[in-house]
Amino acid sequence: MSIQYIAELAGTYFFAISGVLATDDDDRNWFGASFTGFITAIGGGSVRDVLLGSYPLVWIGDVNFLYAILFGVITSLAFFNLVIKLRRLMLLFDMAGIALFTIVGVEKSLSLGARPEVAAIMGVFTAVMGGVIRDTLTHKKPIIFSKEVYATACLAEQSFT
Amino acid sequence: MSIQYIAELAGTYFFAISGVLATDDDDRNWFGASFTGFITAIGGGSVRDVLLGSYPLVWIGDVNFLYAILFGVITSLAFFNLVIKLRRLMLLFDMAGIALFTIVGVEKSLSLGARPEVAAIMGVFTAVMGGVIRDTLTHKKPIIFSKEVYATACLAEQSFT
Amino acid sequence: MSIQYIAELAGTYFFAISGVLATDDDDRNWFGASFTGFITAIGGGSVRDVLLGSYPLVWIGDVNFLYAILFGVITSLAFFNLVIKLRRLMLLFDMAGIALFTIVGVEKSLSLGARPEVAAIMGVFTAVMGGVIRDTLTHKKPIIFSKEVYATACLAEQSFT
Repeated sequence: MSIQYIAELAGTYFFAISGVLATDDDDRNWFGASFTGFITAIGGGSVRDVLLGSYPLVWIGDVNFLYAILFGVITSLAFFNLVIKLRRLMLLFDMAGIALFTIVGVEKSLSLGARPEVAAIMGVFTAVMGGVIRDTLTHKKPIIFSKEVYATACLAEQSFT
Repeated sequence: MSIQYIAELAGTYFFAISGVLATDDDDRNWFGASFTGFITAIGGGSVRDVLLGSYPLVWIGDVNFLYAILFGVITSLAFFNLVIKLRRLMLLFDMAGIALFTIVGVEKSLSLGARPEVAAIMGVFTAVMGGVIRDTLTHKKPIIFSKEVYATACLAEQSFT
Repeated sequence: MSIQYIAELAGTYFFAISGVLATDDDDRNWFGASFTGFITAIGGGSVRDVLLGSYPLVWIGDVNFLYAILFGVITSLAFFNLVIKLRRLMLLFDMAGIALFTIVGVEKSLSLGARPEVAAIMGVFTAVMGGVIRDTLTHKKPIIFSKEVYATACLAEQSFT
């Protein structure tokens, strides 16, 4: 397993955790939390692959991503209070995930023959679309309007090009 | 026509009704209500088929589903007060629809060669994604955070496996 | 370039502007505004093409649409106060865009072999789905519940058939 592959699994794991943490205390049940965690983790890559028509989607073709998500959901439900305390640390991992998946999205799109302009957009979609769906589901202000996120995605794209 | 096919059309009909009922009194016009009913009814199956890359989508290939939806929208707009009175009964049909479409989603995904883990997720998506989109459009608390739904989907999956 | 092609680029440009204008004053940063403008402009056509399985998507295959969007985003961020003053005029262009893209969506669906019933739905999706996503992202009342929109889409469909 390459370092990038492990990093992608780790990023998926942290995205799933961020999904579970976004659910309100009153609403949190294992089904809703799992659903939110899951859709946060697969959202960005799925939107990218569907827009590009690249089948099978990553998590459908490679079951390891499902286990990374399941592991993330279980971690955050089982150790909820601990994970909440580490929220700031989690945010760091989220930012790292956004930077990573921006680059992954750009790379994959270019390798599928997309133009650089399209690849740049796909990088952003891969990185933030999961969070956008998560915030919509849980009625939060969408992640794209937060300053940290665009700075991160931005830096990732600049460092890539 | 097989019993399952008729049940799927009936489930589609009730999903369309649930979409129309979810619109606010102030907002309800035939366009918005039809749109919401329609997207509630096709949402789950469409998300599943798009994620699996299975074309044509069910309602595009088989126009009977469109007529089931149209019939549901007309029923609920023409007999709105009656349908609202029968809301509890409608909820029962919704639950039956969720159970049915969980199984339909699992079955179809397996028949397309998806792994069991993926098929289980597609079952849930088929059953609840239409409702999730409906609740997002009408600013309701998403269906995945309600207790009835996960219990139903859950039982459906367990009874299937 | 045909007149229709130029009109489509212009419609895309105005949809992007409507996306930027929909962001709240507090939230508006270039990243969030660009994202919202972009997704508003590509939303309808992308949903149509993904549902029909028609690849590549229009804006992925033809980079001019990306530049129309970019130009729309830049216009509305650079001349924000002016554009806001012209909001009523913008609404007119939006309505024209909705009428245009309804027809474009119907035409394209028919040319891909869709039944007339499906094509009519795709026309509506092409015209309003970008606005629906925009309103969801920015927590506005979805465009489908506004009277102007359904009248416009309606007239467009009637004039086409």
